[in-house]
Amino acid sequence: MQKLTISGQEFNSRLFLGTGKFSSNQLMEQALIASGSDMVTTALRRVDLQNTEDDILKHINPNRFRLLPNTSGVRTAKEAVFAAELAREALQTNWLKLEIHPDPKYLLADTVETLKACEQLAKKGFIVLPYMQADPILAKQLEEVGAAAVMPLGSPIGSNKGLITREFIKIIIEQANVPVIVDAGIGAPSHAAEAMEMGADAVLVNTAIAVSNDPVMMAEAFKLAVKAGRMAFEAKLVAQLNMAEASSPLTSFLDL
Amino acid sequence: MQKLTISGQEFNSRLFLGTGKFSSNQLMEQALIASGSDMVTTALRRVDLQNTEDDILKHINPNRFRLLPNTSGVRTAKEAVFAAELAREALQTNWLKLEIHPDPKYLLADTVETLKACEQLAKKGFIVLPYMQADPILAKQLEEVGAAAVMPLGSPIGSNKGLITREFIKIIIEQANVPVIVDAGIGAPSHAAEAMEMGADAVLVNTAIAVSNDPVMMAEAFKLAVKAGRMAFEAKLVAQLNMAEASSPLTSFLDL
Amino acid sequence: MQKLTISGQEFNSRLFLGTGKFSSNQLMEQALIASGSDMVTTALRRVDLQNTEDDILKHINPNRFRLLPNTSGVRTAKEAVFAAELAREALQTNWLKLEIHPDPKYLLADTVETLKACEQLAKKGFIVLPYMQADPILAKQLEEVGAAAVMPLGSPIGSNKGLITREFIKIIIEQANVPVIVDAGIGAPSHAAEAMEMGADAVLVNTAIAVSNDPVMMAEAFKLAVKAGRMAFEAKLVAQLNMAEASSPLTSFLDL
Amino acid sequence: MQKLTISGQEFNSRLFLGTGKFSSNQLMEQALIASGSDMVTTALRRVDLQNTEDDILKHINPNRFRLLPNTSGVRTAKEAVFAAELAREALQTNWLKLEIHPDPKYLLADTVETLKACEQLAKKGFIVLPYMQADPILAKQLEEVGAAAVMPLGSPIGSNKGLITREFIKIIIEQANVPVIVDAGIGAPSHAAEAMEMGADAVLVNTAIAVSNDPVMMAEAFKLAVKAGRMAFEAKLVAQLNMAEASSPLTSFLDL
Repeated sequence: MQKLTISGQEFNSRLFLGTGKFSSNQLMEQALIASGSDMVTTALRRVDLQNTEDDILKHINPNRFRLLPNTSGVRTAKEAVFAAELAREALQTNWLKLEIHPDPKYLLADTVETLKACEQLAKKGFIVLPYMQADPILAKQLEEVGAAAVMPLGSPIGSNKGLITREFIKIIIEQANVPVIVDAGIGAPSHAAEAMEMGADAVLVNTAIAVSNDPVMMAEAFKLAVKAGRMAFEAKLVAQLNMAEASSPLTSFLDL
Repeated sequence: MQKLTISGQEFNSRLFLGTGKFSSNQLMEQALIASGSDMVTTALRRVDLQNTEDDILKHINPNRFRLLPNTSGVRTAKEAVFAAELAREALQTNWLKLEIHPDPKYLLADTVETLKACEQLAKKGFIVLPYMQADPILAKQLEEVGAAAVMPLGSPIGSNKGLITREFIKIIIEQANVPVIVDAGIGAPSHAAEAMEMGADAVLVNTAIAVSNDPVMMAEAFKLAVKAGRMAFEAKLVAQLNMAEASSPLTSFLDL
Repeated sequence: MQKLTISGQEFNSRLFLGTGKFSSNQLMEQALIASGSDMVTTALRRVDLQNTEDDILKHINPNRFRLLPNTSGVRTAKEAVFAAELAREALQTNWLKLEIHPDPKYLLADTVETLKACEQLAKKGFIVLPYMQADPILAKQLEEVGAAAVMPLGSPIGSNKGLITREFIKIIIEQANVPVIVDAGIGAPSHAAEAMEMGADAVLVNTAIAVSNDPVMMAEAFKLAVKAGRMAFEAKLVAQLNMAEASSPLTSFLDL
Repeated sequence: MQKLTISGQEFNSRLFLGTGKFSSNQLMEQALIASGSDMVTTALRRVDLQNTEDDILKHINPNRFRLLPNTSGVRTAKEAVFAAELAREALQTNWLKLEIHPDPKYLLADTVETLKACEQLAKKGFIVLPYMQADPILAKQLEEVGAAAVMPLGSPIGSNKGLITREFIKIIIEQANVPVIVDAGIGAPSHAAEAMEMGADAVLVNTAIAVSNDPVMMAEAFKLAVKAGRMAFEAKLVAQLNMAEASSPLTSFLDL
């Protein structure tokens, strides 16, 4: 399998994990390890920036995982830029998952503010991975203003509905020159596999692992599904046909 | 992961493979091995019953794989029973995948003839796994006349369209006391994972592996996807929601 | 629009109605009239066969509607034939909707018993319209034993999920020499329109009308949707494309 | 049925038509009449602004139809505003369908430019109906800057794939205080009916009518389907159930 590269850094896994909603930090840590992921996102809001000895960070081994702080909770470009700068200073990383969702119900991204913030942050030297609507025009614009990857949603955050935006994600993948990471809505390993089969470069999963009955087993399930989907993409899926085609010859057995 | 048991025999893998359409027997053999499968089906018609040194059988190591002869090509219960008996004698196995599809275009199973043949074959001591429409009433009837498992189609053979019958397969799984193996139409690892996530006991794949650009890599992809789907079933998938639910708390970051 | 003909009788409407679940017989009567239907099915069980002055029949004007008694409630071919003969004598009609569903939860048809009963009833001079699984092989077999039309389900009775069997209904339509009437599961006018666009000859609707807030308005909505779908079938739907195609020329306006 | 009102003007029909791709202006005129529509959009580019006696306009009777010029072909807010002002002067209307799609392949709307142009045009006194991605945040923003209605796409223009954005259109409808008109991608009357059943206020159709075998019959089919969908919305669709629910009582017929 080809390795994923974002902004010059190579990743061993095409599965990114979120850290919300786990019942304990211990369980989160075990799930992160089981997932095989090497990219983990945490809401800045959940990190105690005054004290980098904060509990959640103790459970994300920096030698194993790249920490990808996210701006969940901000509502404008201005807030996002401010939050990003605090994070860079406190966490010593210029990697950033940009999330601007003013809408508290569906948590959908604000396109105009996201594009504005992405441009400013890229100019300030951040490696920006913006969460976005599955909007192909926007994906190209984010790429043009310096996004290191684009992160279109599959379906609303936490809805677990899978790739309801699949037709638009296909267009984004077709047109992109940066990695396309499907974020939000992936509720089952089959959803993750489908995203990878379509040619997505990676997927980000959180709720589906964190709140399952067995997050560690589910993390491993996603690890396998992401690999399976990527291998199928590389080996190339067969086409769908309207007519059946026998796997075996149909001349009657009894003609023998 | 729980192991699959059919008619008292345990299987290490929940992925069954078909042997049609490979470009060579060598490639088939490599794909079978890469798949991790231990159950392989072959059309009786493709085996030279006068000569068990037949080429295809040389490529299916009997110590590694259970051979599951299938009756593809027969059109009636009578033909099926005749074929099964020939197979038992020549191949020394009473395991049988029963397929009766008189229709040369979509290769759909004949319900009435399948039920009749299954009953007769079970009485004659065969371990019968019938390929069938995704018909929940029929599934119960096959179980009652002695089927060792049921094999509803996901979509027409070779169509690669995935689980277009999912709503009916769910009912079959809910009601079954024998293993449910989704057969036909599985065109991608994500389809296989979905079947397993729903609680199917196994899947049978052929075309999607045999005619991909790289059957060996695709076989491994299916192996991983089937495991992923089963683990997700055991760890229990999260529910789909109509509203988003933040993975991270949403109180504004700037309130800090 | 072409008229529908079943067993030599012409119908003005391609919408058939069921009579269950209405909150009153008066409301049912108004909805029947608003629907424009001229074929109405009633469970034999709901008719008082000792007294053909039974209330429900008073609300189905025989000059306006053909009454299509159905055998809902029977579980075997034998029960179906017995019920049919009682009905013929009491109601003076040899038209019959054959329904055999032993399963009290999903009300799915028993394929083997349905085929057997259809054959017997056709021989006894009934005009048989069998409710069935969306099983293309069975559709041909029913046609061969004398069914006047076939009635595949769209989804389980009362589920309102629409055409979850669409891929199989397409095959049934492609192969049928008798009218194909989609029965069960049609929960919205858009479902009915879709069935007609695919080339179904008629649809049967009950729950979606009977239990809506306004059964009379909903009946009229279905009347329009069925016409719309049929007209679209006759005018031929345009093909789906993977690429956009501008309705208007795209040379820049400003080049003027 | 409730009437549709946009910016204080009442419309008799909830079906809007486009004028592209008809094989002749005569056929277009007949289809417009058969559709029952009273709102018709034409690309400015197709109107000869130097000569308001232009042929296409002769076929759109201003006493019967409100003309809705559209800016198809422009690529930026600046071009859109310029085009709009030319149109207002030449065609004597301040109604405008705003379309900004720089992308020649999928014709998707540019969110940032659309929002900017909408704001400017609303300030200049235009009644703006913007074509847009099915982006719920954007829909609220367009409303806030003065859009008279919002026109989210169902699927890419001319693709005829129907409501692939349905989950997002539902959110837009839930949140909107201006009419929601589904534009683009509606390829069949069933798609139009579904949009209306969901609570869309109107739909705009072009390709599906213009390039069918019989545009006049297809226009009438859409007219009926839109009415059907609206009536079903007002009468309220029944819920989808996972279990069947008998329309008729199931106590055995033979217990009589």
